[in-house]
Amino acid sequence: MRRFLKKISKNSRSNEDGIFFEKITNILGFKPNNIYYYKKAFTHSSINKVDDKGNPFNYERLEFLGDSMLGSVISAHLYNEVPTGDEGYLTKMRSKIVSREHLNELGRDLNLIQFVESKVNPQHFGENIHGNIFEALIGAIYLDKGFKHCESFIQKKVIKPYVDIPKLEGKVISYKSLIIEWCQKEKKPFQFETFEDTGNEEQKYFGVKLHIDNKIVTKARATSKKKAEEKAAQRAYFVFQDQIVKK
Amino acid sequence: MRRFLKKISKNSRSNEDGIFFEKITNILGFKPNNIYYYKKAFTHSSINKVDDKGNPFNYERLEFLGDSMLGSVISAHLYNEVPTGDEGYLTKMRSKIVSREHLNELGRDLNLIQFVESKVNPQHFGENIHGNIFEALIGAIYLDKGFKHCESFIQKKVIKPYVDIPKLEGKVISYKSLIIEWCQKEKKPFQFETFEDTGNEEQKYFGVKLHIDNKIVTKARATSKKKAEEKAAQRAYFVFQDQIVKK
Repeated sequence: MRRFLKKISKNSRSNEDGIFFEKITNILGFKPNNIYYYKKAFTHSSINKVDDKGNPFNYERLEFLGDSMLGSVISAHLYNEVPTGDEGYLTKMRSKIVSREHLNELGRDLNLIQFVESKVNPQHFGENIHGNIFEALIGAIYLDKGFKHCESFIQKKVIKPYVDIPKLEGKVISYKSLIIEWCQKEKKPFQFETFEDTGNEEQKYFGVKLHIDNKIVTKARATSKKKAEEKAAQRAYFVFQDQIVKK
Repeated sequence: MRRFLKKISKNSRSNEDGIFFEKITNILGFKPNNIYYYKKAFTHSSINKVDDKGNPFNYERLEFLGDSMLGSVISAHLYNEVPTGDEGYLTKMRSKIVSREHLNELGRDLNLIQFVESKVNPQHFGENIHGNIFEALIGAIYLDKGFKHCESFIQKKVIKPYVDIPKLEGKVISYKSLIIEWCQKEKKPFQFETFEDTGNEEQKYFGVKLHIDNKIVTKARATSKKKAEEKAAQRAYFVFQDQIVKK
């Protein structure tokens, strides 16, 4: 009977692991070599877990490591992307990108908190839990796959969708004007096609399709025409970022 | 005549480059792929050099990059070497290792200042010039060869000869007792063979040969027997560091 229970619990354990493996693979965009690091990245110190050597098994040390790796990858990115920026500029921009607020946003958007094992509901740990486990995840990727891989993950999940240099510099106020200016400079035809898009909601909504080069490049929806256009333009900015920044 | 002068200056330029390449290869322990980065790492802003795009050509941005990379490599080293240390411990140890004082010592020991191109004598820039160009050199290695290579350089030039965890923790007071304890634990025969070694000097000197496992592993010379023994023991500690730390 005991053996039977043990077998059941072992099976349910590996089912759980299987689900975790699948979900984390989805978020990472690659298959982990060693799931151990990722388990650690989502274990909170409150459950007092230890590894087989008796050392604490939780994400705190991984957070330290991930913070360092993230800083290096962002430094190298800024060094290459902004050849005119001096070391004061680079330091300031890096601290904006890796700000607590920004990291919390990243962790929250990836919904990392769903994986956290802790004594109490992880939602009670406050906002910083999101950023902390995001950093721990980067530490885990570094240990599991090495620096290059860690760098591509940060490129894909941090830099591409979030690092908006002109906005961080406080230079871009309106993405709509930026996109218009760029289209005019590049002689690309463009059109903000707006329409009412309220549907069943009480609140009025507007939709925008942004056409560039006679193709719909982005869509957006908001409570005013102006807001929807700005949203669509910002999305277009992210699509064409490489081309726009180089100008 | 003008063409002739140009030719001479071009030749002497490439001779200069050849000497620089040879010297820097010696310090690095590998051949650079692109000497450009290393030239930049030793160019001071006082000479107002610019690159072919008109951007400042000096080490300041490389220093920013190297500082980041050094931090990451040290973080990963500490993470792996001290599995019992929490994030507070890791942060404190890292800042001890990458302290301004320590980096200046490293740069000075490698005699990097010999390469600095500046308007005035680089010795006038104060102590920090040594650490700054050491960091810039690390930035150059990263750009030239990538992270893995940068990591091995730091392993060889920083961690192996300088990172002495027990000493940084303030735990080791006497290397002699440490070595004796370790030899006893490992059942290795050892002997501190001391002798007067004054030679032609006025001051009395003592020499020590430290035998472990019936081989001379280190030698030292100092103004007292005690000092010479401590020096020899410290050197032995660096030789056997990996084995001793794991105990």
